[in-house]
Amino acid sequence: MPTRTDLPQEFSFIHRHFSELAGPAALGLKDDAAVFMPPAGREMVIAADAMVENVHFLPDDPAETIGRKLLRCNLSDLAAMGARPEGWLLTLARRPGLDDAWFSAFCGGLKADQTHFGLSLLGGDTTSTQGPLVLSLTILGSVLPGQAIRRIGAQAGDGLWVTGTIGDGALGLRVLQGGLADPSGHLAERYRLPRPRVGLPLHGLASAAMDVSDGLVQDAGHLARENGLSVTIQASTVPLSEAARACGPEWLETCLTGGDDYEILFAVPPAREESLMRAGVLMTLSGPVPVTRIGQFHTSATGVQVLDENGAPMRFKKTGWSHL
Amino acid sequence: MPTRTDLPQEFSFIHRHFSELAGPAALGLKDDAAVFMPPAGREMVIAADAMVENVHFLPDDPAETIGRKLLRCNLSDLAAMGARPEGWLLTLARRPGLDDAWFSAFCGGLKADQTHFGLSLLGGDTTSTQGPLVLSLTILGSVLPGQAIRRIGAQAGDGLWVTGTIGDGALGLRVLQGGLADPSGHLAERYRLPRPRVGLPLHGLASAAMDVSDGLVQDAGHLARENGLSVTIQASTVPLSEAARACGPEWLETCLTGGDDYEILFAVPPAREESLMRAGVLMTLSGPVPVTRIGQFHTSATGVQVLDENGAPMRFKKTGWSHL
Repeated sequence: MPTRTDLPQEFSFIHRHFSELAGPAALGLKDDAAVFMPPAGREMVIAADAMVENVHFLPDDPAETIGRKLLRCNLSDLAAMGARPEGWLLTLARRPGLDDAWFSAFCGGLKADQTHFGLSLLGGDTTSTQGPLVLSLTILGSVLPGQAIRRIGAQAGDGLWVTGTIGDGALGLRVLQGGLADPSGHLAERYRLPRPRVGLPLHGLASAAMDVSDGLVQDAGHLARENGLSVTIQASTVPLSEAARACGPEWLETCLTGGDDYEILFAVPPAREESLMRAGVLMTLSGPVPVTRIGQFHTSATGVQVLDENGAPMRFKKTGWSHL
Repeated sequence: MPTRTDLPQEFSFIHRHFSELAGPAALGLKDDAAVFMPPAGREMVIAADAMVENVHFLPDDPAETIGRKLLRCNLSDLAAMGARPEGWLLTLARRPGLDDAWFSAFCGGLKADQTHFGLSLLGGDTTSTQGPLVLSLTILGSVLPGQAIRRIGAQAGDGLWVTGTIGDGALGLRVLQGGLADPSGHLAERYRLPRPRVGLPLHGLASAAMDVSDGLVQDAGHLARENGLSVTIQASTVPLSEAARACGPEWLETCLTGGDDYEILFAVPPAREESLMRAGVLMTLSGPVPVTRIGQFHTSATGVQVLDENGAPMRFKKTGWSHL
């Protein structure tokens, strides 16, 4: 596409790379804001997340996956609420050294994902920085009134369940840093491309839910505390991928505390657990996903306890990520 | 407020500083996303802008004004569409060296502004960076269906109008950089605290509108091009503040091209100009604001031409800001 030389660089940059991502509400990315009629009879759900080079992704990660990772992290927030994606906005602070080829790949990845997950770009802003690349994404979704799943709602006795497998993302980061072998490539791929569980049918099933982004142990403890409860996790029941198991038991702590999972952690009342146990999977927009019972909520002192296969409490060097 | 030591640093940071900004939809900033019922019978308007330290604000700008500046820039986008503010989300990439006192002042400023402009915090994210501070803000507003004012809609013969005064922000930056005297303090104050024209009654009056953020000349040219028109500006009619005039005629170019105005530039059909000329002001949420006719749209070649008091075209070293 030819550069429109009558326009300042910034407009031509946005036109070249982002206009093909824009939906009708974006008004061609040429106005001060996007305008749309909200879906009739639905509540809106909105969240924002930022990613910083060297913190959430690596400078030599493929451009094609960096934007998708951020979009997928945000989609995971919608999935945790049981919401349907509607649209997204992106701001980016560009550092020197990222050329047109980089942004073509960056936007190409985003285009594939927005098609798959059924949403489109509403707007955003580009600016420059002398520091690391910073991306910020706002995601907008919708849900039937009263059907959003909150973090609050779990009761003592509810089971603690999780989608998919835990630890692949954290191990993938170690692989990319050179500290771990990954013959199948599965771990690095999960670090770079989380699999948001969009469309997970939590309404009528889960009493509370959140997405696991900062480490299973920390996030489970957080879910328990929000409900004034404690939670016990049986480490041996935590679902690990074949690639994660192949790393050996010395990597279990990394799996349980490492972060970057983007699975959904949810509480299920006892009366609904048997049929879920029998099914073993739930449907998502991307197909069926296994679900596993890994623990239970209790009324005793708040917090999280992880038990090993002998029922003894495990101790960890750290329980998860804090972005400060 | 005591630090909740049972929580990771990040949660306690958000709790300390941001929870008092959160409205009911934010669910106490404790969930994966905010949930709200959109205002009945209205379209939603949404925009996002980022600000980077050393690009959009200075490291020694008061913390109290930095967040407000970004919020006000976003409010200016809503004002340009004729939309009413509803809510906002903030992501921030913190650099080392910004302490609790800094964030208290930062959030204090935001609290005053969200009260004044009638909106509340919906959510966001905090993370860390080794580079300059990066802030990204998404703003959500609403408008009656079909009443959003677009950039497209101006006709040849329409007058070009602008709110308030032009150039104060750009001169204020020069003052803060030590290159210009500002005995009244007006210029620095306008650089740090733009005055978004929220509530400006553009519906039924303006055929097109945008906010002036990257320099009057560039933005006017952009508005003309979007409409397949040219625009002529009479430099002598561009409204300057007393403080800007006191800087002397050698600063006129800075005023016309400098950016950081956050005034509203709008096109008015001839039939509506006489009464507007007589009134000379329009109401906003913050009180009446002067409006001035500074030029006219034409059918000839697209672009912008600025004429001096003798009707001769003026030439500028640059026409505005491009954030690349």
